[in-house]
Amino acid sequence: MSQHTTDTHAMMQPRYTGIPTFMRVALADNWDDVDIGLIGVPYDGGVTNRAGARHGPREIRNQSSLMRTMHHVTRINPYALARVADLGDVLFQRLLKHPEALDEIEAVFARVKSHGIIPIAAGGDHTISLPILRALAKDRPVAMVHIDAHTDTWDEFQGSKFSHGSPFRRATEEGLIDPTKVIQIGIRGAQNTTDGWDFSREKGMRVVFMEEFAEIGVDAVIAEARRVVGDAPVYLTFDVDGLDPIYTPGTGTPEIGGITTLEAQKLLRGLRGLNYIGADVVEVAPNYDTTGNTALVAATLMYEMLCLIAERLAATR
Amino acid sequence: MSQHTTDTHAMMQPRYTGIPTFMRVALADNWDDVDIGLIGVPYDGGVTNRAGARHGPREIRNQSSLMRTMHHVTRINPYALARVADLGDVLFQRLLKHPEALDEIEAVFARVKSHGIIPIAAGGDHTISLPILRALAKDRPVAMVHIDAHTDTWDEFQGSKFSHGSPFRRATEEGLIDPTKVIQIGIRGAQNTTDGWDFSREKGMRVVFMEEFAEIGVDAVIAEARRVVGDAPVYLTFDVDGLDPIYTPGTGTPEIGGITTLEAQKLLRGLRGLNYIGADVVEVAPNYDTTGNTALVAATLMYEMLCLIAERLAATR
Amino acid sequence: MSQHTTDTHAMMQPRYTGIPTFMRVALADNWDDVDIGLIGVPYDGGVTNRAGARHGPREIRNQSSLMRTMHHVTRINPYALARVADLGDVLFQRLLKHPEALDEIEAVFARVKSHGIIPIAAGGDHTISLPILRALAKDRPVAMVHIDAHTDTWDEFQGSKFSHGSPFRRATEEGLIDPTKVIQIGIRGAQNTTDGWDFSREKGMRVVFMEEFAEIGVDAVIAEARRVVGDAPVYLTFDVDGLDPIYTPGTGTPEIGGITTLEAQKLLRGLRGLNYIGADVVEVAPNYDTTGNTALVAATLMYEMLCLIAERLAATR
Amino acid sequence: MSQHTTDTHAMMQPRYTGIPTFMRVALADNWDDVDIGLIGVPYDGGVTNRAGARHGPREIRNQSSLMRTMHHVTRINPYALARVADLGDVLFQRLLKHPEALDEIEAVFARVKSHGIIPIAAGGDHTISLPILRALAKDRPVAMVHIDAHTDTWDEFQGSKFSHGSPFRRATEEGLIDPTKVIQIGIRGAQNTTDGWDFSREKGMRVVFMEEFAEIGVDAVIAEARRVVGDAPVYLTFDVDGLDPIYTPGTGTPEIGGITTLEAQKLLRGLRGLNYIGADVVEVAPNYDTTGNTALVAATLMYEMLCLIAERLAATR
Amino acid sequence: MSQHTTDTHAMMQPRYTGIPTFMRVALADNWDDVDIGLIGVPYDGGVTNRAGARHGPREIRNQSSLMRTMHHVTRINPYALARVADLGDVLFQRLLKHPEALDEIEAVFARVKSHGIIPIAAGGDHTISLPILRALAKDRPVAMVHIDAHTDTWDEFQGSKFSHGSPFRRATEEGLIDPTKVIQIGIRGAQNTTDGWDFSREKGMRVVFMEEFAEIGVDAVIAEARRVVGDAPVYLTFDVDGLDPIYTPGTGTPEIGGITTLEAQKLLRGLRGLNYIGADVVEVAPNYDTTGNTALVAATLMYEMLCLIAERLAATR
Amino acid sequence: MSQHTTDTHAMMQPRYTGIPTFMRVALADNWDDVDIGLIGVPYDGGVTNRAGARHGPREIRNQSSLMRTMHHVTRINPYALARVADLGDVLFQRLLKHPEALDEIEAVFARVKSHGIIPIAAGGDHTISLPILRALAKDRPVAMVHIDAHTDTWDEFQGSKFSHGSPFRRATEEGLIDPTKVIQIGIRGAQNTTDGWDFSREKGMRVVFMEEFAEIGVDAVIAEARRVVGDAPVYLTFDVDGLDPIYTPGTGTPEIGGITTLEAQKLLRGLRGLNYIGADVVEVAPNYDTTGNTALVAATLMYEMLCLIAERLAATR
Repeated sequence: MSQHTTDTHAMMQPRYTGIPTFMRVALADNWDDVDIGLIGVPYDGGVTNRAGARHGPREIRNQSSLMRTMHHVTRINPYALARVADLGDVLFQRLLKHPEALDEIEAVFARVKSHGIIPIAAGGDHTISLPILRALAKDRPVAMVHIDAHTDTWDEFQGSKFSHGSPFRRATEEGLIDPTKVIQIGIRGAQNTTDGWDFSREKGMRVVFMEEFAEIGVDAVIAEARRVVGDAPVYLTFDVDGLDPIYTPGTGTPEIGGITTLEAQKLLRGLRGLNYIGADVVEVAPNYDTTGNTALVAATLMYEMLCLIAERLAATR
Repeated sequence: MSQHTTDTHAMMQPRYTGIPTFMRVALADNWDDVDIGLIGVPYDGGVTNRAGARHGPREIRNQSSLMRTMHHVTRINPYALARVADLGDVLFQRLLKHPEALDEIEAVFARVKSHGIIPIAAGGDHTISLPILRALAKDRPVAMVHIDAHTDTWDEFQGSKFSHGSPFRRATEEGLIDPTKVIQIGIRGAQNTTDGWDFSREKGMRVVFMEEFAEIGVDAVIAEARRVVGDAPVYLTFDVDGLDPIYTPGTGTPEIGGITTLEAQKLLRGLRGLNYIGADVVEVAPNYDTTGNTALVAATLMYEMLCLIAERLAATR
Repeated sequence: MSQHTTDTHAMMQPRYTGIPTFMRVALADNWDDVDIGLIGVPYDGGVTNRAGARHGPREIRNQSSLMRTMHHVTRINPYALARVADLGDVLFQRLLKHPEALDEIEAVFARVKSHGIIPIAAGGDHTISLPILRALAKDRPVAMVHIDAHTDTWDEFQGSKFSHGSPFRRATEEGLIDPTKVIQIGIRGAQNTTDGWDFSREKGMRVVFMEEFAEIGVDAVIAEARRVVGDAPVYLTFDVDGLDPIYTPGTGTPEIGGITTLEAQKLLRGLRGLNYIGADVVEVAPNYDTTGNTALVAATLMYEMLCLIAERLAATR
Repeated sequence: MSQHTTDTHAMMQPRYTGIPTFMRVALADNWDDVDIGLIGVPYDGGVTNRAGARHGPREIRNQSSLMRTMHHVTRINPYALARVADLGDVLFQRLLKHPEALDEIEAVFARVKSHGIIPIAAGGDHTISLPILRALAKDRPVAMVHIDAHTDTWDEFQGSKFSHGSPFRRATEEGLIDPTKVIQIGIRGAQNTTDGWDFSREKGMRVVFMEEFAEIGVDAVIAEARRVVGDAPVYLTFDVDGLDPIYTPGTGTPEIGGITTLEAQKLLRGLRGLNYIGADVVEVAPNYDTTGNTALVAATLMYEMLCLIAERLAATR
Repeated sequence: MSQHTTDTHAMMQPRYTGIPTFMRVALADNWDDVDIGLIGVPYDGGVTNRAGARHGPREIRNQSSLMRTMHHVTRINPYALARVADLGDVLFQRLLKHPEALDEIEAVFARVKSHGIIPIAAGGDHTISLPILRALAKDRPVAMVHIDAHTDTWDEFQGSKFSHGSPFRRATEEGLIDPTKVIQIGIRGAQNTTDGWDFSREKGMRVVFMEEFAEIGVDAVIAEARRVVGDAPVYLTFDVDGLDPIYTPGTGTPEIGGITTLEAQKLLRGLRGLNYIGADVVEVAPNYDTTGNTALVAATLMYEMLCLIAERLAATR
Repeated sequence: MSQHTTDTHAMMQPRYTGIPTFMRVALADNWDDVDIGLIGVPYDGGVTNRAGARHGPREIRNQSSLMRTMHHVTRINPYALARVADLGDVLFQRLLKHPEALDEIEAVFARVKSHGIIPIAAGGDHTISLPILRALAKDRPVAMVHIDAHTDTWDEFQGSKFSHGSPFRRATEEGLIDPTKVIQIGIRGAQNTTDGWDFSREKGMRVVFMEEFAEIGVDAVIAEARRVVGDAPVYLTFDVDGLDPIYTPGTGTPEIGGITTLEAQKLLRGLRGLNYIGADVVEVAPNYDTTGNTALVAATLMYEMLCLIAERLAATR
């Protein structure tokens, strides 16, 4: 793996200047020179309520200009540890052909993987995690840390097996994730049936409902997550509706009574050293983000993920 | 046809009280007693840019509480001339199965037609006009007055022949509209090809680009519309992006330099006495409607349409 | 009491479809078949600062479409336990005749009571709790759990004994509530005199100021509430300004430093099994609710109240 | 009358600095030294739909900091022609005692009149024009130029003869205005009855519906207004909903299809030299003014009125 | 000049996908292959009221994704006529050293000119036109078409000769523009002195106040502009506050009663064939642009300018 | 010191009435009769990202009308303990001459000090604390309690030693603060270098990063602050970005994961009895304050500061 680091010159400029790539890193022409790829998936064809996550990547890029290089807690500078690039957006030819469009997502991430790049994706609705996993985990089921208000292990919606309520049911069925190595954190909210909750439990996922989260605290949740995941290859997926909607109003299916950003930051920082194969932040719908805070939160979460992955990469190089 | 008129008691209440059906007319249990049906089509699976028109019917209903009974220019009280009801929303079973969902729309409007009801639909994106026409015009091609920034006679988008850019190309091909009896008003904005404009022209549609509209004025456009449509059965379709986005910011593909509401009102009032088979107002995306004016405009346009249709019904009874 | 349950078919539809009654339950034609009535009181004639709560019922109805049937913690499905209906809005004849309009509210709730319906009201400003109590508690003083930033036991405002600052002073004077069985939770904010605080204390109400709330925690507050209220008939009133304004910006007299929604949910869930005679959620002013979260919170609180009351009804049937 | 002029020093400062009195003129301690008084009436107890005009004076003051001294068309500097002061707000003791609160407004304007000050009031809802006229026109009926979407000559609303729909019916009945010297401009929008329109016409008011306005143009309307009013003492009242809601979204009863600001400015400038006894701008509800343009428009209209009145004062001194 | 044209592939993608460069053209690495350069100047150090134009370039880029290739009136495809690129933003080293930062702008535009590129700049406040003219017009004074609410020929503000109120006074003094070949269109609004108006008039500029604009109409203004400018090298500068603030609320010093977008489009299209040396669109402050329409208007104006310049380039190649 | 107290009559009026001075206290004509001066500093010439704090004083004044006299926890009525006045805004002559404008701020505060007034300033960006300290602490270095997301001890930005990132580095260098008596609370967020953090630590400041704050809790932070500051003359400075952006979205450089308002209130109330020489609340940018909560928070913090200072003044009189 290369010893080169990312050019962070653009990050030194005033935050409102320049073209808004993710973190203002370069848009990669050549994927051979990239260790970690920040990539947008502007797709929300699987939502069940309010659309808008298709605009997520662009607004997260915009707000990510407020990010900087060195982490104030861990003092990690991910750009010194790995070569980080913006891979652009997944481009589509069949956007109105849901779920065929998911194949287009999978194809791009297969290419990402073939270049040895670890992707951090910005959604898009949660449906996108399924084709990403199809690309990254096709060889063997992986572990997963999943922050969300919903288990996303529900079944059909409106005639389709593929919606943002079902990706991890499908991923389990397809052998992409090992449900016994999955932890779901922040789950809450009334439902019309118990089907999804039951699926998660019956398959062996560790479901931390919000009430348990509040009861046992972040440190205990971190310990639990590390126990569940162990040293397995792990995918990290963060639906911003796992947070309370006061932090992330710009999302499609808000659920009150959620996680705070301070807790989320602590949680992620507690997951250093895991064997990451990829990550995503999903369900940012800027058209509902009246303060812009949702995209700022998402950009900051991507930065935290970037630190985690860069550190691991450097450690195992 | 019945001599009964609509109960307008609820309209006398303060505007913010009560359940927001369209105009606060009753939600029809029995479609047999309805002459004109106001109906929502919460579908935006055909948009090419910003989604949100799925929320249009609900917000138009909300703003329609500001409507009242008697028209200040024509002194028409449509509720005294016809039995008007809210038919509720088209409910879907296959929302994620675009374009199958269009068949569900068609089925509902076929039922509307079978009850002898003239529908005024609130979209939804412009895709919905196609299944509505399939239901209402299956017997013979109809005439059409079409206000819009776009001709919506373009071809495929992202692998689908069915998007909000194509309904009237499809409707022409399927023999639902007679292009020589179609007028398209307010067309403008750059395009990547001339394909849609060419289709409209070659098929014989009368296309009034915005610049011609401004040049010749509303009275001349009215005359032209009446000439084109004549006495044929006619469908009236109003895409709110035909108006300038200052009036209707809450829409998916805004185009600056459009029609004013004063012009639009005059235009509609100039179309009294036509042989209406139905009408729609489409592309209201409340999530982009920062002032609420878009839905207010749409509700007012529906009221104008209601006056037109009720007057015609009463005259031909 | 009937064994029939509520038809929840509409709740299964996508959240943006259909007419927005509360929770999308049916609008009751016949009040004889109803156990729990959700009812709007679109009145804000008693506010001292920003108006807008008159629009509360409609927007709470709108957001309540995101609610579903089964509670994720208690697994209660209120619709299986009781017949729930939307009773519509209180309609007024004397809106500009404050405080005569309060008599109109009282008359409607007297009718609700006469049908044996337990009401859950959506305000409206807090003034409405007075006429509701006049209807529900005319026979004997009741207990009350009151979440709010203000004690609402102040005296005259601008020449009137009836404002949203005084309902519980009046209710005490009129013998509608037993102050020794009243707990007020979340009180805070500077005042011009100590008059209201003094009244509450002198009459024997248990006032939990916000600072005590933060100090002792929700569990202790729940215990205190259960101790104060005991098994007496109890009215539950929730002013959304008891929450921090980050959760409920859409209100008339915001006060920083309040309760979180997670705490509020836990608090309500801690009050299972009480002898409820009715409940309300008040002071939602959608015109100040820039994110829509205020109405979403209010709808969710109504759902929590519904679970509490349905469970109690089923248990005592 | 004094030869002193207004100190305009504060207007030279950057627009965002200093305390926002109207136009940043001094807040008058001594009303003896004032020719024209800018005064706020923060009252909206007479609205029939959305409240918020109580906040109008403050926000108009805020936006009025963008105003400057010299008119770009007429080159009038009103501050060089008259002593202009901010008289503060009408303060109330009986705000919740509608319509008694109107007496409090009347008392303040009686005092304004007794000091020989010509008032330009910022509302507040249109109800306030009635007590202002009671103070200014108690001796004899006056002429009136009235720009509005509504004639405001309707009768009772919700049990009260006093609402923002009725001030000029009451003023006619009370002999405060001479209906044959009244012109109403911009009227439009459906109504539930023709009662108000009929009252205006039957009493001899000149009603210029919006459609006539558009037809004959501003110059003809000006001529008509000058003809109707002649040289009689005249009150000028401008309801911002007379303008199209794209200019003034921040109002309680918006009606599409209205006057443009460019037309309104031309209209006012066409009314130079009339015998003004006072003026008002009403129905600015900042809580619905998402862009701030409504208050900016209102402030600019007040400046236009100020030029008109100062010029007349100087000419007749 | 090259026969190559611009790659417009990215413009064919859905509008929300990809990195938002201007019009989604490529970000130029090599300025040698560029005929027309779209360039951002994120600087608002010269504003006198509300700041925010520093964010203009980014948001105009964002909205410019809605632009397409072929003009619907002129049928010009600028990308087929010239090589168009995004040159990125002017980057600064001395942002807090106003007016030194202006030298940094000048240096970049000098480099643009040295590559033979005709720039279309997105501001930034109007101060930026001065350093741009210093770079482009250093050899000889040029003609100028200037659309604006203000003449921007005022003198010092707050101790500085360089603000957004003075660029064209300075440009006149420095011999960069020939005032007798300057036309200023849309001027309006009260001022504290007549100094700026006088300067423009005395130097020989043709000032079309808004009232004259409305009186004589766009066609006459076009004729006047063409007469004034003739065949001289001409700079085109468009301050979005020349438009009515209903079109462009996102600006720092709004002035009611302005130009419509339809008029502006017609005006620009009337200026085909002039000898352009550059152009700018300035004063877009996205933080005040509640609907996003301001940036959409600015992007559309840039597209119109692009057509004008590309057509001229192709004609004189 | 005078025994007179402040006239609080205006505070008893409805909150939306009257001219919005700070807390609606009188605007002081004569500074001799003032103990505590509330003063605006509408300056944001030192920001590095989003501007707008220049509008802070006006909007904080607006929201401060919701404040009242008596503190609900401490039962302090500051107006009974000290004479409190609004001193107006610092007026500028050299706003575009950064950093000369800072000298204008200093001069005003020198005059404040010469009248024996303790100022509570409303910014403006954090740059303003430097000239305030130059005025108040010119005789000897003072202690400081500093709540913020950033240490503001960074060095040059864009060619200037004076920005909102550097005031306390400059104040240390200039001997205005004694770094060993400075505590910085709430620090967080990635940076491009460690320079500022290092400066604070090396000079002996006590830096409480957010993570430590969350770990040890408010009570421990209070104890630490009291230990660091002791009985030294102390300046209290509160940057609202120290709070989480959900409380204060209206600020220029938001950083997620911050302090809650409940914690901030407890923190301030824990600092009773310190030897205050002045205080400020800075970085309120109303143009980004979509809910108005930021200014409400700032006004409430000013009220808390006022109680602290008035109490100390009364105790030492």
